[in-house]
Amino acid sequence: MFDPVTMKLQVDPLIESALREDITEEDVSTNCVMPEAKAGEVELIAKEKGIICGLQIFERVFTLLDPETEVRFEVKDGEEVHEGERMAVVRGDIRVLLSGERTALNYLQRMSGIATCTHQAAKLLEGTDIWLLDTRKTTPNNRIFEKYAVRVGGGHNHRFNLSDGVLLKDNHIGAAGGVRQAVQMARDYAPFVRKIEIETETLDEVREAADAGADIIMLDNMDHAAMAEAIKIIGGRAKVEVSGNVTCEKIAALTDLGVNYISSGALTHSAPILDISMKHLHAL
Amino acid sequence: MFDPVTMKLQVDPLIESALREDITEEDVSTNCVMPEAKAGEVELIAKEKGIICGLQIFERVFTLLDPETEVRFEVKDGEEVHEGERMAVVRGDIRVLLSGERTALNYLQRMSGIATCTHQAAKLLEGTDIWLLDTRKTTPNNRIFEKYAVRVGGGHNHRFNLSDGVLLKDNHIGAAGGVRQAVQMARDYAPFVRKIEIETETLDEVREAADAGADIIMLDNMDHAAMAEAIKIIGGRAKVEVSGNVTCEKIAALTDLGVNYISSGALTHSAPILDISMKHLHAL
Amino acid sequence: MFDPVTMKLQVDPLIESALREDITEEDVSTNCVMPEAKAGEVELIAKEKGIICGLQIFERVFTLLDPETEVRFEVKDGEEVHEGERMAVVRGDIRVLLSGERTALNYLQRMSGIATCTHQAAKLLEGTDIWLLDTRKTTPNNRIFEKYAVRVGGGHNHRFNLSDGVLLKDNHIGAAGGVRQAVQMARDYAPFVRKIEIETETLDEVREAADAGADIIMLDNMDHAAMAEAIKIIGGRAKVEVSGNVTCEKIAALTDLGVNYISSGALTHSAPILDISMKHLHAL
Amino acid sequence: MFDPVTMKLQVDPLIESALREDITEEDVSTNCVMPEAKAGEVELIAKEKGIICGLQIFERVFTLLDPETEVRFEVKDGEEVHEGERMAVVRGDIRVLLSGERTALNYLQRMSGIATCTHQAAKLLEGTDIWLLDTRKTTPNNRIFEKYAVRVGGGHNHRFNLSDGVLLKDNHIGAAGGVRQAVQMARDYAPFVRKIEIETETLDEVREAADAGADIIMLDNMDHAAMAEAIKIIGGRAKVEVSGNVTCEKIAALTDLGVNYISSGALTHSAPILDISMKHLHAL
Amino acid sequence: MFDPVTMKLQVDPLIESALREDITEEDVSTNCVMPEAKAGEVELIAKEKGIICGLQIFERVFTLLDPETEVRFEVKDGEEVHEGERMAVVRGDIRVLLSGERTALNYLQRMSGIATCTHQAAKLLEGTDIWLLDTRKTTPNNRIFEKYAVRVGGGHNHRFNLSDGVLLKDNHIGAAGGVRQAVQMARDYAPFVRKIEIETETLDEVREAADAGADIIMLDNMDHAAMAEAIKIIGGRAKVEVSGNVTCEKIAALTDLGVNYISSGALTHSAPILDISMKHLHAL
Amino acid sequence: MFDPVTMKLQVDPLIESALREDITEEDVSTNCVMPEAKAGEVELIAKEKGIICGLQIFERVFTLLDPETEVRFEVKDGEEVHEGERMAVVRGDIRVLLSGERTALNYLQRMSGIATCTHQAAKLLEGTDIWLLDTRKTTPNNRIFEKYAVRVGGGHNHRFNLSDGVLLKDNHIGAAGGVRQAVQMARDYAPFVRKIEIETETLDEVREAADAGADIIMLDNMDHAAMAEAIKIIGGRAKVEVSGNVTCEKIAALTDLGVNYISSGALTHSAPILDISMKHLHAL
Repeated sequence: MFDPVTMKLQVDPLIESALREDITEEDVSTNCVMPEAKAGEVELIAKEKGIICGLQIFERVFTLLDPETEVRFEVKDGEEVHEGERMAVVRGDIRVLLSGERTALNYLQRMSGIATCTHQAAKLLEGTDIWLLDTRKTTPNNRIFEKYAVRVGGGHNHRFNLSDGVLLKDNHIGAAGGVRQAVQMARDYAPFVRKIEIETETLDEVREAADAGADIIMLDNMDHAAMAEAIKIIGGRAKVEVSGNVTCEKIAALTDLGVNYISSGALTHSAPILDISMKHLHAL
Repeated sequence: MFDPVTMKLQVDPLIESALREDITEEDVSTNCVMPEAKAGEVELIAKEKGIICGLQIFERVFTLLDPETEVRFEVKDGEEVHEGERMAVVRGDIRVLLSGERTALNYLQRMSGIATCTHQAAKLLEGTDIWLLDTRKTTPNNRIFEKYAVRVGGGHNHRFNLSDGVLLKDNHIGAAGGVRQAVQMARDYAPFVRKIEIETETLDEVREAADAGADIIMLDNMDHAAMAEAIKIIGGRAKVEVSGNVTCEKIAALTDLGVNYISSGALTHSAPILDISMKHLHAL
Repeated sequence: MFDPVTMKLQVDPLIESALREDITEEDVSTNCVMPEAKAGEVELIAKEKGIICGLQIFERVFTLLDPETEVRFEVKDGEEVHEGERMAVVRGDIRVLLSGERTALNYLQRMSGIATCTHQAAKLLEGTDIWLLDTRKTTPNNRIFEKYAVRVGGGHNHRFNLSDGVLLKDNHIGAAGGVRQAVQMARDYAPFVRKIEIETETLDEVREAADAGADIIMLDNMDHAAMAEAIKIIGGRAKVEVSGNVTCEKIAALTDLGVNYISSGALTHSAPILDISMKHLHAL
Repeated sequence: MFDPVTMKLQVDPLIESALREDITEEDVSTNCVMPEAKAGEVELIAKEKGIICGLQIFERVFTLLDPETEVRFEVKDGEEVHEGERMAVVRGDIRVLLSGERTALNYLQRMSGIATCTHQAAKLLEGTDIWLLDTRKTTPNNRIFEKYAVRVGGGHNHRFNLSDGVLLKDNHIGAAGGVRQAVQMARDYAPFVRKIEIETETLDEVREAADAGADIIMLDNMDHAAMAEAIKIIGGRAKVEVSGNVTCEKIAALTDLGVNYISSGALTHSAPILDISMKHLHAL
Repeated sequence: MFDPVTMKLQVDPLIESALREDITEEDVSTNCVMPEAKAGEVELIAKEKGIICGLQIFERVFTLLDPETEVRFEVKDGEEVHEGERMAVVRGDIRVLLSGERTALNYLQRMSGIATCTHQAAKLLEGTDIWLLDTRKTTPNNRIFEKYAVRVGGGHNHRFNLSDGVLLKDNHIGAAGGVRQAVQMARDYAPFVRKIEIETETLDEVREAADAGADIIMLDNMDHAAMAEAIKIIGGRAKVEVSGNVTCEKIAALTDLGVNYISSGALTHSAPILDISMKHLHAL
Repeated sequence: MFDPVTMKLQVDPLIESALREDITEEDVSTNCVMPEAKAGEVELIAKEKGIICGLQIFERVFTLLDPETEVRFEVKDGEEVHEGERMAVVRGDIRVLLSGERTALNYLQRMSGIATCTHQAAKLLEGTDIWLLDTRKTTPNNRIFEKYAVRVGGGHNHRFNLSDGVLLKDNHIGAAGGVRQAVQMARDYAPFVRKIEIETETLDEVREAADAGADIIMLDNMDHAAMAEAIKIIGGRAKVEVSGNVTCEKIAALTDLGVNYISSGALTHSAPILDISMKHLHAL
């Protein structure tokens, strides 16, 4: 669940902006046929199987347009829903139901798609201590929704943005003059509450990073043997994250290596939506 | 290409908002190792084959952060690119290159993914007069980018939002009291420069819509035989749009029916990204 | 009536901006004499005869400042009011009544002025099928209010802005290389739900436009004979709009020509306000 | 002239908002026929006689859209222009010229209309010490433009808004318990840099106001004899402002009374526009 | 007290911006341990003696986050509070109490610090007619809070900003060509409801300012003898303000000079906070 | 130095908001005497000894108003300046110099005050490994400036806000059901790149926190003996932060305890400004 503070400060402005994107002056089709308020009810129906996610956002679209709108949910975020299942009933001014429908569904379908996709990958890690992580490869102006969906699907969040986490990549290392220097400069500069993570591509870099006292070492695009060797070199001195075009097959092969985290951009950047619709609108 | 007016009025505020999403205070990793400005250069590389789209947006992310940044493109929107192909060289303050990279790529990858997906579908319609259309099933706060990508991929845009087009759906028809009444009410209310489109699910509705003088009739989720019959009923009195979970196989089967438009939400809501990266950053 | 969605998304931000224009820190006169909340009531009085328009906006100014304010209307938008007529009673914190008065009246007077002016012109078209249209010659940041007032006064709206309608003027035609080319380019580029309107100044252009299949042909600043000839040339192949310094006398002379639309910028750009005031404030 | 600070802080955001009102996505007509940038030139022509005002705003619309646009003026704010007179040449990307035209003219026409109307009234006061004043009866979100136009036309500005001036009206007096108390409360509360103005409707109020030490006394809707008597009562102890449906005839009759200020809402709320157009666009 | 109009138009946007500064995505510590809403109560306790100020702002932080939050105050703005005194009880969702605490206290502590500091200085002027004034030396984006705190502490406000008061300083005088010219130019240009204040550094300037009819003359950094002489020169023709590093000792020495106003930037720019905390949070 | 990305995304909007706070319509005093642009130059002078900080912000105020303004600095952030020392020369349109002066100085004086105050405290820790930290007790909407000033003065930053760091206080511990549970819940919920800090008030809590694996343990308001014992208990298993009304005397007494961090709210909430002025403005 989104807490009320995040809803008010972060979520509401994004939803309002999305609504203004879809309604620059008025919903002309609705206003043609409905010059006056009219109470009605509509059902939210799953059109395929998946993990539902974003119900609060779906609801908030309507209550932002009209605080009188009521949504009665029959499922909760994170539950599996099935084709044809009724998930909620929305009641309010029919004009509001029609005008908000597309924006509400666009959020709900995307978030559920990500949760469903994450869930499939996370299941492969069940019974292990390995965390499945997202990345910053999210849709612009949708990160808060997509990172939430990853959590609902059973994943965990990597840093939220460039300001709240240190991740030293090859270019940072180059600029610093080496792995050791980069770690040291990060420790001197960054707020001390941040862990220092560093990306490595070779075993030499892994060794240097572990020696320099990095908190987390990312193994980027290494093969299985290299990763096994890297983990031996690190020897528990740092947490280990594996990254780089992680597919479901790859995940299965990673479970016995002793890594701590597996991160995947595809969870957010390439998950297809979950098909959902609003049906059976009728006046009351 | 986006024109300069749209860039200034519509695109810039969205990019700035996306940048603030990714940088709430500072890019702490970059600032650790690069306390001063330093000129550098980096290459934009395709990591798989597809239709490139969004180069202006990619560039604008960097020039918004620092107008001195220069991007030299070697491809243009709409061209097919191949794995490993260098598409551009970006030159500027390395801190800016690093801080803008993720946001710039998030836009470019998504837009190229949609253009690539649209291109595949549009190719099936080559040699016909049928237009491939998008829908309003876009990612919130990204519609302007996604609709552009559809055009670059060879599709056409349906209405942009609820304010600039009339599309009467079942609920509007119900509220109006019937197809004829809905069309009439739309004609009376909507600005006269709008065409009136109406969604139909049965042949009776098709007939009533054509008789009522609808400009465009959408056949929603009809089977092949029903569509053929509908087109006969319409008899050229209105343009015909086909809609409803349109897949590539379906598209092929639609080409000989005589429809004018085929619309597909999947173009925008479920296209996987095209993999692209920035490589070989070096100081100058 | 404005629908609740438009009120929330489009109207509220404009009213808030107008209130901040009039109250940059505090209403210092009111705060001098009223340090505490005090319930009161005030009447809304017409000071001359005309068509009232904008009552929702008038009310919204006060309820935005204080949701507890209550407005009891005795007339409705579009009704004719007379000098001295009480149109509403507003009840709330006197400080809010005083601070919101000017902004509320500025909207109401202007909208009523436009509705009154439009009503006078529209009456001349009674009994005909001709629509009286507005233009984009509206006051910046007030278009939504002024276009609404035109509808309330009995007119219809032309396109809302440059994004939701195609109107090819002489400069567009020049750029395209001719009327035919312009119509064709518009058909290829613009979302297919838009009708194509083209402005013509000569009979040759009229003929070319009709042949090219324009949906609407505007006759710009033609004399009576030319218009009659133009309509003959068009022969029902397109709708016909007349434009260009349309005065009341001219309107009368246009009714028998067979045109479909007459557009007038003066409705919005030069209508004097309708005089209205708030009177008889008293504590409760 | 607007100073650069006001332009940047106050004017630019209003113009940008006006442009977004007119272009919610793109200028579709222009984009149909002009896919690429193309240099061109267009003339600004007066279509009737009047006082030109707002040239900086006209220019700023185009330079905000594209800083490369150049405007060469042949007249200055406050000058009288005549029918057919060329006032400026605008040079830039034709797409920008077309997309900004309407917004630029909407500002220029309105501001020139107000300056022209003010000029006519102000001329009646030539040779006297009396100042012609505007009011807060301005168009919402246009006050800064309209108050400037009054100055250009030869008038002076009353307070800008509710925060920067004290004007005690009947309701304030009522709340305070009398004229004397109201003046005293204002003196105690308001920042000491403000003059205290009070509105009076009777000679008793005038006397009380002068005795209480008001800095400015407004005579609201008094007849000629009452005004003469009021001015005698005041006897130079306060400045005198006359208000209330001031027409040109009334102004003439007020010049020998000894008042200091005459204020008129009509200057801003009911001035018709000055007709101006952009003509002769051609490519370069 | 802040009036409701100022709260809505001016205060709310600043508080929301401050909250977004402190919560860019979510309150992660609170969300770790409190996944669900939970009612609770917390006390507001003074940790040292001083004048309390800003209770409405403190409350508004919480009610903006959640309108259900209730604050029961036991003191009022302007009252002296003592170490350990309970000033209020706040009841609501514990998550909201925790997330809003720091922002609410940051406002309250600063405003109370300024009120306390102002109170100490203002006491030195008790029994005189001299007003203690603030300046524009306030913390950016906090002026409305800091000027209010000065009033609560017993001071008065000088002009609010550069737009609502005329204060001619040496550079303005230089640009005008002399004191007399500056006063005359201000009288010609500025809205006539403004008093004209002028800053003087020498007795010659004082004389010229009084002769020119300035409404207020500021004596800037003069010694005691010069000020006495200046006041003699002015002879009641203008109000007199003393300015320039005014300390408490200096204030005492100024009371018998016959000045009207003493202004001090230190009231707002260097007052230490008043220590206040929220304690004894418990679930209900 | 602020990097260009932070300047653009975070700093500019705050400065613009501050400028609009000080100039709601125009700088009326300046416009009275300077109707036209006029080139001039002014010097920035220190009026007392201290650490200068915020020169970029000072400059940005002027260049935001007018990009042509040039500032030539003679000192750098972090340097000690002395009474009467010239620190910069600013050259540009005199109107811009006058209108921006107060806002520019308000930022510079406050930031330099904090840097000076921090510098005094940080000097006490010279020769030790102990870091001096700030807190979230900053002025609303000024945190980015105040945290920067702490760094310039020789301190380090604690977390920036509630979203980018985990700090479990007594209320979080209470909600979790104990120290161990709180640490565990934080580890499960928070992004894994965050260190977990926990606030302790008793030695039992210290022990539990260390056992639970907290990364940082804050000793809140403990006496010297308790702190010594706490550090013994922790035994290097976590970093140690000391907090609670830390004064300069206290800091001296803390240097031999073996703590890692000392945090002080007073650095930002109670530092008096450093007195700075702009002098010797003259035309060029």
